[in-house]
Amino acid sequence: MREVYLDNAATTRTHPDVAKKALFMMREEYGNPSSLHAKGLSASAALEEARGRLAEILGCEPREVYFTSGGTESNNLALTGAFEARRRKGSGIVTTAVEHSSVIEPLQFLEKEGARLSVAPPLPDGRFDKNAIAGAVNEDTVLLSCMLVNSETGAVAPLEEISAAARAKNERILIHCDAVQGFGRLNVSPKRLGADLMSVSGHKLHAPKGIGALYIKSGVRILPILKGGGQQVDRRHGVSIRPGTENVPLACAFAEAASIMHANRAGNLAHLRDLCEYFMKRAANTPGLCINSPGEMAPYICNVSAPGYLSGHLVSFLSERGVYVSGGSACSGGKDSRVLAAMGLAPERIKGAVRVSLCPDNTEEDLAAFFDALETATQTLRRTGAQG
Amino acid sequence: MREVYLDNAATTRTHPDVAKKALFMMREEYGNPSSLHAKGLSASAALEEARGRLAEILGCEPREVYFTSGGTESNNLALTGAFEARRRKGSGIVTTAVEHSSVIEPLQFLEKEGARLSVAPPLPDGRFDKNAIAGAVNEDTVLLSCMLVNSETGAVAPLEEISAAARAKNERILIHCDAVQGFGRLNVSPKRLGADLMSVSGHKLHAPKGIGALYIKSGVRILPILKGGGQQVDRRHGVSIRPGTENVPLACAFAEAASIMHANRAGNLAHLRDLCEYFMKRAANTPGLCINSPGEMAPYICNVSAPGYLSGHLVSFLSERGVYVSGGSACSGGKDSRVLAAMGLAPERIKGAVRVSLCPDNTEEDLAAFFDALETATQTLRRTGAQG
Repeated sequence: MREVYLDNAATTRTHPDVAKKALFMMREEYGNPSSLHAKGLSASAALEEARGRLAEILGCEPREVYFTSGGTESNNLALTGAFEARRRKGSGIVTTAVEHSSVIEPLQFLEKEGARLSVAPPLPDGRFDKNAIAGAVNEDTVLLSCMLVNSETGAVAPLEEISAAARAKNERILIHCDAVQGFGRLNVSPKRLGADLMSVSGHKLHAPKGIGALYIKSGVRILPILKGGGQQVDRRHGVSIRPGTENVPLACAFAEAASIMHANRAGNLAHLRDLCEYFMKRAANTPGLCINSPGEMAPYICNVSAPGYLSGHLVSFLSERGVYVSGGSACSGGKDSRVLAAMGLAPERIKGAVRVSLCPDNTEEDLAAFFDALETATQTLRRTGAQG
Repeated sequence: MREVYLDNAATTRTHPDVAKKALFMMREEYGNPSSLHAKGLSASAALEEARGRLAEILGCEPREVYFTSGGTESNNLALTGAFEARRRKGSGIVTTAVEHSSVIEPLQFLEKEGARLSVAPPLPDGRFDKNAIAGAVNEDTVLLSCMLVNSETGAVAPLEEISAAARAKNERILIHCDAVQGFGRLNVSPKRLGADLMSVSGHKLHAPKGIGALYIKSGVRILPILKGGGQQVDRRHGVSIRPGTENVPLACAFAEAASIMHANRAGNLAHLRDLCEYFMKRAANTPGLCINSPGEMAPYICNVSAPGYLSGHLVSFLSERGVYVSGGSACSGGKDSRVLAAMGLAPERIKGAVRVSLCPDNTEEDLAAFFDALETATQTLRRTGAQG
């Protein structure tokens, strides 16, 4: 059976050159970058080269890039670390209702610790409501967190405008951006977007799972979550932002993957736009299907609903035919989508949602296989009476 | 130039079969274990198999094993998580003066947050002082943290006796063991040692950097550090202990490495004992060299001093001749050893310390190369007047 992998927003297949890089580092350049002998120094040089490659793609300085174990850690570190560092200056935090759980949950935790949390809803079509987000900023606000690309609908936040409008209301706020679903595919520059803190992750762009990074604008002080060791120090404030032996093989693999994606970005994006256009046309022509993604979107996360069916049933049915899609965010573990609920969609549309997320290796044939299988699914499941 | 790697307590070379396992998972079983399609389910099955393999080696249940990004995260999670969960029951924490910085620093942070920290010094010969450690436990104590094998001297804590004596003074305490330098080489069973929480790490036993685990005894409640996502849930208390997409490739690699080490443990240990005996004999016969490791020790971490010389100079000189050793813990980044200072050694002995740490691949020829190079070093450095 041909496998059609259309769940690239959950995770991606590691690129062969990227896996090769990780393997080389594990077997040949295996030193501890803190060791003072030649084996340590060459591991350290490879680590710093990887940091430099990521910095170049992000348009920042290498010392502004800190490696983490992934997007969840980057988001937790950015939000908890920034709030704890700023809490004497105010207690307000602004975010949106469509953030990833690794943004929402640390913020809800901070709320219990005294933060005043404002959560801006999206527009009914899934777009980010820049007026609601920037409008929630006031004199007491210390932190604003807004993702770049929504992981379920593909909606892209106009972060440059949001940052400018938010800073016009309070110039002292820190702005964090969860760019996990944008980095490597869109042109993601924290400076251009006005972000002080930005989370990125490897396994969404054909690097392995277990590696991410946090951009921290030079001069911005945050407190670490993990303590111990002298690795990855913010030299200006004399604090180890992320202690622990650095994951050199995966840091190098991450930089390799990001470089490959960056070098092919324009071509990839054109290809993804074509695929997305094909997807939307076919979705619009399929009876009984609603499109949940907004018009303005990242052309690689496509969300549709088959009202009257259950996401889980559709995902399993398609899986049996070798077509791998998702009901929503993988991290939600199959629960109803918070994002679609925040958009105010009807319950049966939420329960019947399917996310198709693309990578540059996908083809029109893959999407055709999806629609064919989905058509069979709705016919078969209707016949068996298994719809929700 | 032949390379002689004798810094295995800092990090190890990834075993070829282990690297192969990681590579296979990256390229073929790349699904997100939270995804509900076949590609996700097979990744999840591989992850749970890895958890089961580690549990079997640790002599515990799979649900008692939580994957982390490494020893530093495991230690932070265990200590912060246990103290936060127990803080209404008392504020006392007992530890030793020779712990890794990823134990000491989180505990010093908790001290600022209200913990009452007792730090037991080692015996002058480097052994753990079980009476001082257990003796510091009182009615207010909620947590005791003691490492199994000291990363600088190889001293092995009599944890079974310490746990029993500590619990005799206060049966409600939680006991954490940083077993990073023991797991895979010694027979490490949290149940036998009386530990409620135990940290282990992959890259000390020929798995890659960036993967570790925390054993949490069934029924013991700790609070997570990272929030978000529903991964790695403690089902009894309904809390995600370690959210974030699991690092499936490295978790599987870790289990593979631990299995290889476990299967060969007796033979490895006999070989390491022979090497250690050779090392100690030759060290004792080398004029101007003092042995810092205690008599009772893990036979793979050997610490000596060449008083009058500087560790850093010796490490660099040896490195130029292809012999890779360390001045102390890699995580201390070349600073004077806290551990040797706690033993009360003279400053010039602390400044001239060299750690030789072995793995089963090392040979007597490796150690001979070390002693030959060290002899040249002391002669040459003396001639050039570079001693401290």
